[in-house]
Amino acid sequence: MNFRSDNTAPAAPEIIAALTRVNEGATAAYGEDQWSHRLDAAFGEVFERDVRVFTVASGTAANAISIASLTPPWGAVLCHREAHIERDECGAAEFYSGGAKLVLIDGAAAKVSAVALEECIARNTRDIHAVTPSVLSVSQTTERGAVYRPDEMAALGEVTKRAGLGFHVDGARFGNAVAALKCKPAEITWRAGVDLLSFGATKNGALAAEAIVCFDLELAEEIERRRKRSGHLLSKGRFVAAQLLAYLEDGLWLKRAERTNALARQLGEAAGKHVSVPVESNQVFIKAGADGLRKLRDAGAQFYDWGPGEARLVVSWSQAEADVEAMCSLLSTL
Amino acid sequence: MNFRSDNTAPAAPEIIAALTRVNEGATAAYGEDQWSHRLDAAFGEVFERDVRVFTVASGTAANAISIASLTPPWGAVLCHREAHIERDECGAAEFYSGGAKLVLIDGAAAKVSAVALEECIARNTRDIHAVTPSVLSVSQTTERGAVYRPDEMAALGEVTKRAGLGFHVDGARFGNAVAALKCKPAEITWRAGVDLLSFGATKNGALAAEAIVCFDLELAEEIERRRKRSGHLLSKGRFVAAQLLAYLEDGLWLKRAERTNALARQLGEAAGKHVSVPVESNQVFIKAGADGLRKLRDAGAQFYDWGPGEARLVVSWSQAEADVEAMCSLLSTL
Amino acid sequence: MNFRSDNTAPAAPEIIAALTRVNEGATAAYGEDQWSHRLDAAFGEVFERDVRVFTVASGTAANAISIASLTPPWGAVLCHREAHIERDECGAAEFYSGGAKLVLIDGAAAKVSAVALEECIARNTRDIHAVTPSVLSVSQTTERGAVYRPDEMAALGEVTKRAGLGFHVDGARFGNAVAALKCKPAEITWRAGVDLLSFGATKNGALAAEAIVCFDLELAEEIERRRKRSGHLLSKGRFVAAQLLAYLEDGLWLKRAERTNALARQLGEAAGKHVSVPVESNQVFIKAGADGLRKLRDAGAQFYDWGPGEARLVVSWSQAEADVEAMCSLLSTL
Amino acid sequence: MNFRSDNTAPAAPEIIAALTRVNEGATAAYGEDQWSHRLDAAFGEVFERDVRVFTVASGTAANAISIASLTPPWGAVLCHREAHIERDECGAAEFYSGGAKLVLIDGAAAKVSAVALEECIARNTRDIHAVTPSVLSVSQTTERGAVYRPDEMAALGEVTKRAGLGFHVDGARFGNAVAALKCKPAEITWRAGVDLLSFGATKNGALAAEAIVCFDLELAEEIERRRKRSGHLLSKGRFVAAQLLAYLEDGLWLKRAERTNALARQLGEAAGKHVSVPVESNQVFIKAGADGLRKLRDAGAQFYDWGPGEARLVVSWSQAEADVEAMCSLLSTL
Repeated sequence: MNFRSDNTAPAAPEIIAALTRVNEGATAAYGEDQWSHRLDAAFGEVFERDVRVFTVASGTAANAISIASLTPPWGAVLCHREAHIERDECGAAEFYSGGAKLVLIDGAAAKVSAVALEECIARNTRDIHAVTPSVLSVSQTTERGAVYRPDEMAALGEVTKRAGLGFHVDGARFGNAVAALKCKPAEITWRAGVDLLSFGATKNGALAAEAIVCFDLELAEEIERRRKRSGHLLSKGRFVAAQLLAYLEDGLWLKRAERTNALARQLGEAAGKHVSVPVESNQVFIKAGADGLRKLRDAGAQFYDWGPGEARLVVSWSQAEADVEAMCSLLSTL
Repeated sequence: MNFRSDNTAPAAPEIIAALTRVNEGATAAYGEDQWSHRLDAAFGEVFERDVRVFTVASGTAANAISIASLTPPWGAVLCHREAHIERDECGAAEFYSGGAKLVLIDGAAAKVSAVALEECIARNTRDIHAVTPSVLSVSQTTERGAVYRPDEMAALGEVTKRAGLGFHVDGARFGNAVAALKCKPAEITWRAGVDLLSFGATKNGALAAEAIVCFDLELAEEIERRRKRSGHLLSKGRFVAAQLLAYLEDGLWLKRAERTNALARQLGEAAGKHVSVPVESNQVFIKAGADGLRKLRDAGAQFYDWGPGEARLVVSWSQAEADVEAMCSLLSTL
Repeated sequence: MNFRSDNTAPAAPEIIAALTRVNEGATAAYGEDQWSHRLDAAFGEVFERDVRVFTVASGTAANAISIASLTPPWGAVLCHREAHIERDECGAAEFYSGGAKLVLIDGAAAKVSAVALEECIARNTRDIHAVTPSVLSVSQTTERGAVYRPDEMAALGEVTKRAGLGFHVDGARFGNAVAALKCKPAEITWRAGVDLLSFGATKNGALAAEAIVCFDLELAEEIERRRKRSGHLLSKGRFVAAQLLAYLEDGLWLKRAERTNALARQLGEAAGKHVSVPVESNQVFIKAGADGLRKLRDAGAQFYDWGPGEARLVVSWSQAEADVEAMCSLLSTL
Repeated sequence: MNFRSDNTAPAAPEIIAALTRVNEGATAAYGEDQWSHRLDAAFGEVFERDVRVFTVASGTAANAISIASLTPPWGAVLCHREAHIERDECGAAEFYSGGAKLVLIDGAAAKVSAVALEECIARNTRDIHAVTPSVLSVSQTTERGAVYRPDEMAALGEVTKRAGLGFHVDGARFGNAVAALKCKPAEITWRAGVDLLSFGATKNGALAAEAIVCFDLELAEEIERRRKRSGHLLSKGRFVAAQLLAYLEDGLWLKRAERTNALARQLGEAAGKHVSVPVESNQVFIKAGADGLRKLRDAGAQFYDWGPGEARLVVSWSQAEADVEAMCSLLSTL
């Protein structure tokens, strides 16, 4: 009953198979191989428009390169107080951007609302003495497992465009969001005004493969430069490309995400009134008090604390159904 | 006859096998898995002392993180004019260090001599108005395929210690150097005063695995921070650890390097008087004039130009012997 | 009745006279003149110990250079939510530090309490994924005109030392604090554990002269480098040195500050129950509602709004007493 | 006979008088005073077009802010090997730009020729692995006292425009260049394609006043931000504005420069065949061997060595004519 994180999971067999498949003979390095060359088209199909795709080795890199490409060093990066870029990336956005400032927004379920965004922009739009709002970065799904619906994304996008801000999405669990919303990826990205997406694959089955999906094509050159300069342009590009192609092929990414979402829903139902944030994707938050959490751990459950008396359970792509069933039984005893 | 670069090669079967082997069940993320935990010891055995090892996704990252950990932003990074960090990393060292300045040293075969180093330090040790020499970075093997012997490294190390400089080695092809010198890795690293080594595995058989080997243990915390902050701490750390463990196991790294060195030697012998830099590792430089190079290419050889009328041939771990034989025949017609 | 800010004031006649006095003949540049050479001793006398002093052209520079010298790029700079470094320096601390993160602390009168500091350190001391608390920066007087008493400073200092943090004071109005506390400068700086002080003179009478007073002498070299590299080492150093020497001479700085503090107290008394923050130095905050503020402005008073219905009045060294009397009359009609 | 540097001189009486003149009453801070508001127009008259002017406290700040506004962090800043930004600013350009790389060009009298510039651009225009030429920075007058004629500037400007580079001029001694060339300031700046000029006043008579003159008006916002963020927006802006207005008034800047140029010419004539770089402005370089220089020093002359056996003599605005005559007599004995 290991529900610590989806990055404790191994790689999916389809991904490993893809690595083996491309491991033949010499090929051009640094993304000039045939597999890397197919990435733009593969993602273009998913997003129903022309895109440029830049692979990187981690979500932190995807986020930081994206944000640095959307803000000057004297900009304010608006994000939720619990955002991964604020809490879990050791200041990567600040490093890559040359010292931009993260300005924090509150909101339930780690979501930024259009109203809160507008207030934040208004409060922080001042004079030469203050940093100036330059980009909004939201997580889809959020750090609390919530999803932004297409209309919510469009509302955020409208505010950013009106205020002249860039719009970035940290999609470390983007597959779970699309699976939950049953929407087209376009609806919650470029059609809503998103400029850059950190498209995650690692948590949902890859070894180490993330992509910056670039909807504002004028940013491509800058992203490419920042990727190279930070050491994220890999020499044997075929291997990261292969992972991403396999991840998209036949909708593997969505199938995996649908399954983990469904299992998380089961956990949520079992936890009943202890659920502290509505379950919308593969993360489940429960408030059971210190005693309750101890009881779960004593029974063999593994998870992270998420505030006092609160636990986060994450369902991984490799989670056994038996695991979930056992956990459900356990949760129903709370 | 593709001799473009050793990063056009696929991954070695042993490496792929290792990936498959560790791809079982859940394990702690971010380098807290059992394989990552074995890295320090495995490298410690190779280097015959306590070391701390930090894996990263590229040689550029290994170099830039290392250099930033050895220089303040107002430092001068001394390196050869043809160094990879100067010419091929898009300013990564400058980015990671907060704007340190690379100060260039000339020398045959892309080598920095102790005398040239001393002169450079003397010339650049000035007052508050100038950046101050803070670190020496050399490539082993060099960008011209040359190797530094233990006594040469010791002489460089002595100069750096006397002048209070850090000492970094870009070992993208470190295996080839050790194989060529038939020395102990310790002799050309920490025993010679090296503080940090970028230990490359990708060119010599890995998918994407490089390691910063830290001999000055007090630098470990800083390196770890810089790695995280730049997005080079991978979540599924087991996969990069597995590559490196397999790379070291049974001396795989040296066997591969010995073979490519030997094949390069054959090429050098075939090229005879056209060899422009003595062949010491897996890179061969030949001067054949524009006509000569065209002739080679017309016959199917692939390689990069390296200055006017000069070519660089690199032997990859996956190079077929037939390939080398064909190239030798071709070279002997020059 | 201009109470906008103390930096709307001209320079004191003593300061102008000092400029004229040193304006004779050639002298060494870049701080090697006789006046610059006297700075360390002059400040040493004020602070009753050995110090190193580095002049800069603005308080923002003094703060940013100090903070960058006390934090690594992956550090967290703890400060009050209303701190000048957070709100009014356009991200200078982030720029100079290579992207450190400001972590905000709440507290009445823009003060950081030792308890709040400890809580902030505890909440932000996590793992490799988060920035790590590295320095506390407080303003003395605060952005709300409050002062830290010696025991309060000592309590903060104790927390910083226990947690391994540096301790910086933004003393843009340091003179007003010392005058208000009637204490020795040492008591609220190095004896309380302060490492670096931004010692302001501009607001209180200089043209453009601020000093970084360095109590941790090991930081001197780094500060000097950062000053040069940011363009704050002035070539004709005599002029900034002369301002500071004149400012300290015969306690000019304290006399001016005592006067503005006293005048501010008068304003506070006149404003009576409308005073929103106890008046401790030369800043007065009053809550009079939108109507009240309009009334004041209609009668000729000039000041900045400081939140809804709240005004900030700052008494400058050059403020006429008649000005203050007129304002007092006006305030008493609220 | 102090010919060390023009920044050993005091401030001109006209400048001190101007400071006193503006030192009356309260006025808006941060460049919103009436004197600061006149700067754009005053410089606009000198340059015969609309300009935006940003005052800073040092030439290093003017250069670094300008360059950072003309290059991305992954850019190459092309400049002469002896340029002040390369040798004497402790890496300020690298710091402000977020780690751009200075790429050095050789040329007699510290001048960059259009041919050398083109070669440098060609040699450094490569691929994603290398930094990309983004800005040319030349000094007018150069570090060897030479001047660029209008046609030379136009030729450089043409190359930069063709290659898509920005064009910056370090005019620490810009007055000396205009006085020497007897040209219109426009001819050697914007009409020749210059985007940004560091206009120096300190060396030629001010206390501490330099200006970034912005010909590409779209850069104004960025420059203003970078100035604030680096602590170079002074609170009592009237004083720096007053210096610059007085400096320009009645052509004071050119009168001073004409005089120092003329005196330098006298020194050059006296030094005869020992002159090592043709004297074109207020700097004189002489090669007299170690013995010759010792002889000069023994006779009371003060100057800096500039390479082995070579001396640099700089004439300051406050240099007495008797001083120059004495030095001429001395030089004629070489």
